Amino acid sequence: MALTDIRIGPRDEAAISAAADAFRAAFGARFQTGEAIRRQHAHTTTYIPPQLPDGVLFAERADDVKRAVGICAAHRVPIVPFGTGSSLEGQVNAPNGGFSIDFSGMNRVLEVNAEDLDCTVEPGITREELNAYLRDTGLFFPIDPGANASIGGMASTRASGTNAVRYGTMKDNVLALTAVTATGEEIRTARRARKTSAGYDLTRLLVGAEGTLGILTSVTLRLQGIPEVIAGGVCGFPTLKDACSAVIMTIQLGIPVARIELLNALQIKACNAYSGLALPEQPTLFVEFHGNEASVKLQSEQFGEVTAECGGGDFQWTSDAAERARLWKARHDVYWAAKGLRPGHAVIATDACVPISRLADCVAETETDIEAHGLLAPIVGHAGDGNFHVSLVFDDKDPGEVEKAEDFIARLAARALAMDGTCTGEHGVGQGKRGFLAAELGGSVDVMRQIKRALDPDNILNPGKIFSLD
Amino acid sequence: MALTDIRIGPRDEAAISAAADAFRAAFGARFQTGEAIRRQHAHTTTYIPPQLPDGVLFAERADDVKRAVGICAAHRVPIVPFGTGSSLEGQVNAPNGGFSIDFSGMNRVLEVNAEDLDCTVEPGITREELNAYLRDTGLFFPIDPGANASIGGMASTRASGTNAVRYGTMKDNVLALTAVTATGEEIRTARRARKTSAGYDLTRLLVGAEGTLGILTSVTLRLQGIPEVIAGGVCGFPTLKDACSAVIMTIQLGIPVARIELLNALQIKACNAYSGLALPEQPTLFVEFHGNEASVKLQSEQFGEVTAECGGGDFQWTSDAAERARLWKARHDVYWAAKGLRPGHAVIATDACVPISRLADCVAETETDIEAHGLLAPIVGHAGDGNFHVSLVFDDKDPGEVEKAEDFIARLAARALAMDGTCTGEHGVGQGKRGFLAAELGGSVDVMRQIKRALDPDNILNPGKIFSLD
Repeated sequence: MALTDIRIGPRDEAAISAAADAFRAAFGARFQTGEAIRRQHAHTTTYIPPQLPDGVLFAERADDVKRAVGICAAHRVPIVPFGTGSSLEGQVNAPNGGFSIDFSGMNRVLEVNAEDLDCTVEPGITREELNAYLRDTGLFFPIDPGANASIGGMASTRASGTNAVRYGTMKDNVLALTAVTATGEEIRTARRARKTSAGYDLTRLLVGAEGTLGILTSVTLRLQGIPEVIAGGVCGFPTLKDACSAVIMTIQLGIPVARIELLNALQIKACNAYSGLALPEQPTLFVEFHGNEASVKLQSEQFGEVTAECGGGDFQWTSDAAERARLWKARHDVYWAAKGLRPGHAVIATDACVPISRLADCVAETETDIEAHGLLAPIVGHAGDGNFHVSLVFDDKDPGEVEKAEDFIARLAARALAMDGTCTGEHGVGQGKRGFLAAELGGSVDVMRQIKRALDPDNILNPGKIFSLD
Repeated sequence: MALTDIRIGPRDEAAISAAADAFRAAFGARFQTGEAIRRQHAHTTTYIPPQLPDGVLFAERADDVKRAVGICAAHRVPIVPFGTGSSLEGQVNAPNGGFSIDFSGMNRVLEVNAEDLDCTVEPGITREELNAYLRDTGLFFPIDPGANASIGGMASTRASGTNAVRYGTMKDNVLALTAVTATGEEIRTARRARKTSAGYDLTRLLVGAEGTLGILTSVTLRLQGIPEVIAGGVCGFPTLKDACSAVIMTIQLGIPVARIELLNALQIKACNAYSGLALPEQPTLFVEFHGNEASVKLQSEQFGEVTAECGGGDFQWTSDAAERARLWKARHDVYWAAKGLRPGHAVIATDACVPISRLADCVAETETDIEAHGLLAPIVGHAGDGNFHVSLVFDDKDPGEVEKAEDFIARLAARALAMDGTCTGEHGVGQGKRGFLAAELGGSVDVMRQIKRALDPDNILNPGKIFSLD
């Protein structure tokens, strides 16, 4: 099935029209139905075609969310939460219409508890806004998916990124949530204690549920002390296997590396060109260490011994901020670097995740696949987690190239599953990866459906994402 | 309501009798109905009165679990999983009868993936059995709740313990599960990748569900490298506040302490007497550091600076194994030390967890409460998590003392909730804490009930635990 065919059922025009009237009455000018705004809220950074909502509510407080869900529940029409639109698998599309809730106006920090290393925020705040706010407290929120995503969106897709190897993913860093359920009621999933055994873990159930079980109204996050010293460096390896061996040894020795990123030779070539680096075109690890002067020195030296043992080149590390920034800017710009390989073409960033013992095999087989099918696709990975991205450069106007891209993604998912991995380590399922979930999780998908049906019997909360209910 | 009154509905004698016949036919001598065995399987380490199952199946493989659940589903009778019986809140009781599944015969290690730092085990294996098995691999499973509990039981109560401050709780260390659902089907909740965004987090939903949503048949765990060097020490403080300030500063500085335990003055007195220590009777921190020689030295020195700044006594640390073992044996023996304060009496170990900024207040108010009510109850806490235990020493044969104990536990729960904490950090809800859940989580408890009803409509899986369905 082509992704362009994703519809979950017929649109209920009368219900949508009645609900739109109710939105207009309740929210006035904060409810918008112009095409440009609707188009913007179906925008995704994939090639999945946009499916526009029938209107967009600019929410300002939790009460707006309760009222909006109440209206949609009464009329049985879909409601789709929208953070910044940086999700990658069609999570903000409205396949059967209904209404988008834009959270950009709900971006307040509600509470910071510096002694407890936690804060509570509205879901629309972006991670950069949050970290700017926190700077004076000496604390930061570590999860960094690359994009300046909203915290609500990051929670909903169970996002992670470059430093999950040290700080975990959103599942590890959300302490509690408030959310509006399909009945329009607001629940709080946990108190602010660091751990709890009090009943089912609804926090973790909502993290990664992509807005299909409840719409988030606040998120309580764990924070970290800003490291006194950050150091980092780069090390090239003759083969992917050698680079991955260094990663495995680093983890086994318990070196608390903050980031450990694998770039393949083509990705290095693209970064050299785009970011003005001059690195040898070979599998390369970018690493970062967080601590104080003594501890980052210790970590860097230990890592240097590891790379030497695994056949790596000379490992130079530095705590010089400018040099580090230049390096990590290059890492964060891999999307643009990939785009630079064939200007004017589209780039899909897809992801897969395997046990780290299989990472070298999975990346190598994917490189072979890319070459065999005449594709252009550099690879970069969060190697410490076994998670990697392929940035597929292609002409999204050419149906033949789109089909080749879809086929490649399907092979990548099958390859990851064959290695006991997952079709998505951090992007979520959305619409793009629905087709792979049954192969990955079998009967568990039926359990997910039972939960969805119990909590949202009319299927109004972000319908058509993760799985179909047919 | 007194805990002795916990019944969830009438027993269905005919159904239980028919199901027992079916168990006998299916399992022969592995199904036992003698009173001694039934009594042993309702044994709990609390004062909650035992409620015996009608029979016990000694399971040997996942297929036994499927068949047993199938029989119970067909006859609509309860089934209660049993690991080692070390749960503390009546989790293994059978309030309306039905059958216990004993997992002691399902204690195999199914797979160890040393490079991936993971293993898959049957749920009946205890953590000590697992660590003995792993020793030659250089890896260990860090979670240590004190008791030599089964991994399945630890997963089901979302257990943690002394080193959760560094390694997390069961929710952080279970990568995937297989479980038999109420229909008798076996599901696998996740693949073996370190992280995933593929659909609802059923792993975390089953961790902490106390066997009410599915019965575990295998658990895939994250492992850690055995630290090259372990160091530790003890530091006394003039006040609880000072000790807790040192804990907060340690966490904020990111010192990766592996254990940081707070013992109050009475607990130290009890430990001195029971374990032959000679520590000053004051609030005291026991700490442990994991790493290599250089990194534990660094951590210990940093921690020494913290204690000095917070008014602590002289901090001596050592990596001498014998001295460390003596100290931590004393810590692990706090239950017996408490019992030693009044020989022949019972001890309830109860728990609460608050944000760490409130830990000193919560412990101090609890001390005042204990004194005001003429109770005897030393306190020990996993201070880095804000989690603490009160070991209430009392005469469980005296109804007046039982009532005083229940009242104390209720006040402790209310105190923790008033500080935005939880009524249980790691013991679970079981039967003992059902009464506090609504106050803690409000409408979230209704969502839990909806999930339970959807997945187990006949309420056969460990009924009467966590919440009632009335």
